[in-house]
Amino acid sequence: MGRITTRRPILKLTLGEGASRRADTLAVEEPLEIRVAGSPLAVTMRTPGHDVELAAGFLVSEGIIAEGAEFHSAIHCGGPGTGGQENTYNVLDINLARGVALPDPDAARRFYTTSSCGVCGKASIDAVRTVSRHPVDQDDVQVDAEQIAALPDRLRAEQAAFDKTGGLHAAALFDADSGELLVLREDVGRHNAVDKVVGWALLNDRLPLRRQILQVSGRASFELVQKAAMAGIPVLSAVSAPSSLAAELAEESGVTLAGFVRGRSMNIYSHAHRVRVDGHASSAYAEEGAQHAR
Amino acid sequence: MGRITTRRPILKLTLGEGASRRADTLAVEEPLEIRVAGSPLAVTMRTPGHDVELAAGFLVSEGIIAEGAEFHSAIHCGGPGTGGQENTYNVLDINLARGVALPDPDAARRFYTTSSCGVCGKASIDAVRTVSRHPVDQDDVQVDAEQIAALPDRLRAEQAAFDKTGGLHAAALFDADSGELLVLREDVGRHNAVDKVVGWALLNDRLPLRRQILQVSGRASFELVQKAAMAGIPVLSAVSAPSSLAAELAEESGVTLAGFVRGRSMNIYSHAHRVRVDGHASSAYAEEGAQHAR
Repeated sequence: MGRITTRRPILKLTLGEGASRRADTLAVEEPLEIRVAGSPLAVTMRTPGHDVELAAGFLVSEGIIAEGAEFHSAIHCGGPGTGGQENTYNVLDINLARGVALPDPDAARRFYTTSSCGVCGKASIDAVRTVSRHPVDQDDVQVDAEQIAALPDRLRAEQAAFDKTGGLHAAALFDADSGELLVLREDVGRHNAVDKVVGWALLNDRLPLRRQILQVSGRASFELVQKAAMAGIPVLSAVSAPSSLAAELAEESGVTLAGFVRGRSMNIYSHAHRVRVDGHASSAYAEEGAQHAR
Repeated sequence: MGRITTRRPILKLTLGEGASRRADTLAVEEPLEIRVAGSPLAVTMRTPGHDVELAAGFLVSEGIIAEGAEFHSAIHCGGPGTGGQENTYNVLDINLARGVALPDPDAARRFYTTSSCGVCGKASIDAVRTVSRHPVDQDDVQVDAEQIAALPDRLRAEQAAFDKTGGLHAAALFDADSGELLVLREDVGRHNAVDKVVGWALLNDRLPLRRQILQVSGRASFELVQKAAMAGIPVLSAVSAPSSLAAELAEESGVTLAGFVRGRSMNIYSHAHRVRVDGHASSAYAEEGAQHAR
């Protein structure tokens, strides 16, 4: 599935120097329809490759499955055994293990709405807490701020396709204890990159992802924190800004959220007790700072 | 609706300098459920404010309405006349004008899938071309590359909330003839920022947006080009990279797509005939370059 990048003729303009025609490398974007037991569940615009991981991770994020044994098999629509229709490799049908409940047709709405008029951030947060089977509150991993500060460069160094296109988000898992990079995935959609990482973990029977750090290349939205929380990841680190609801969900679900991780500084938005800075528990600074602020 | 930003206590860490507690400003993210005639159509995570524009623009992007007269009214669920339920201002019910067809429950899928096994980029592009009521092929506007090059700075200068949070995308409309900035909207989701701009245009009876340039702060995905094409916008300019499908849709739907608009250079991915550089039609360069390349 070598369709991560493609080349296309473009016109390069530079003011004062005119224009020239050349080939440019672009990140590939194609729709993927995810089906469960033959019923369409969602369509996402993604970069092809690691589609089974993407679908598996999506099902974890949506609370439909939570461990490898609940995933039975995946088949591309049009592939062998489906009657010989043309195979675009853009429709993937997932079969769950026997006994696993099929998704509610309204699955995509479960994290946003709880009652007829009750769509709000608080309801969204409560829904994640209710549905998650991998709570992270008790994960007592300790991470050094030096270690977090190094992750964006390590992520970037491994992003082969980004260098060519400038158009791909990345997500990667790092083991907090050994520092090892476990898996990195790229996609035009940052939510897809995270789903691929989580799906990889599910398919390798590694859920919940205790004592792991998830590093992402962009901003941290509610949806990314939701995916971390559903996979039992205790630390989420983002290069850019989190949203208000991302920070609130991280606080409520027990996830340590770092943002603006750039150079030698970073902001910790929730559960700072897991982060050590210059050999000290950063939560000590937090309490001291809070007292000074009074 | 002053809920664009909010403040939250964080821990700021700087390696070698320790930690300090302070208040940080975050971009607000909250769910919005869009209903049509009482039936839920979609939930989007958005920055509150300009919700009626967002819903109206979303309906244009999905091909449900295409002019102001087709939009009748909007009411927040829980607002006056809905029986006094608690109003979260996160559910917006749209009433269409008499005679306008209600959306297919599968509306969100119409741009991705055409047959049982036919989800692919080509089908997605064909769907936009079939559904759009504002074709841009015949828009003969000419834009100077100097004008495009200046837009990212003009966008950035008007982005009040970005300066505080670093977490908001922006979209703005510029008149190609006068150079005037017509409207700018910010949101945690770049698709929402564009929907707000398009919705503003619909509610002000300005669709189709002939001879206008849409400038966006981030990357250009299929979805953003789709929104431009559905609103009849001839020129879309992005600060960052487009995806493969964004460039293909722009080519097929007649939209001029500029990407990596930075400093004094930019890439033109489609319909370069609308762009003039240093006083010359850039398409002349394109042909010349193509000849040289043979």
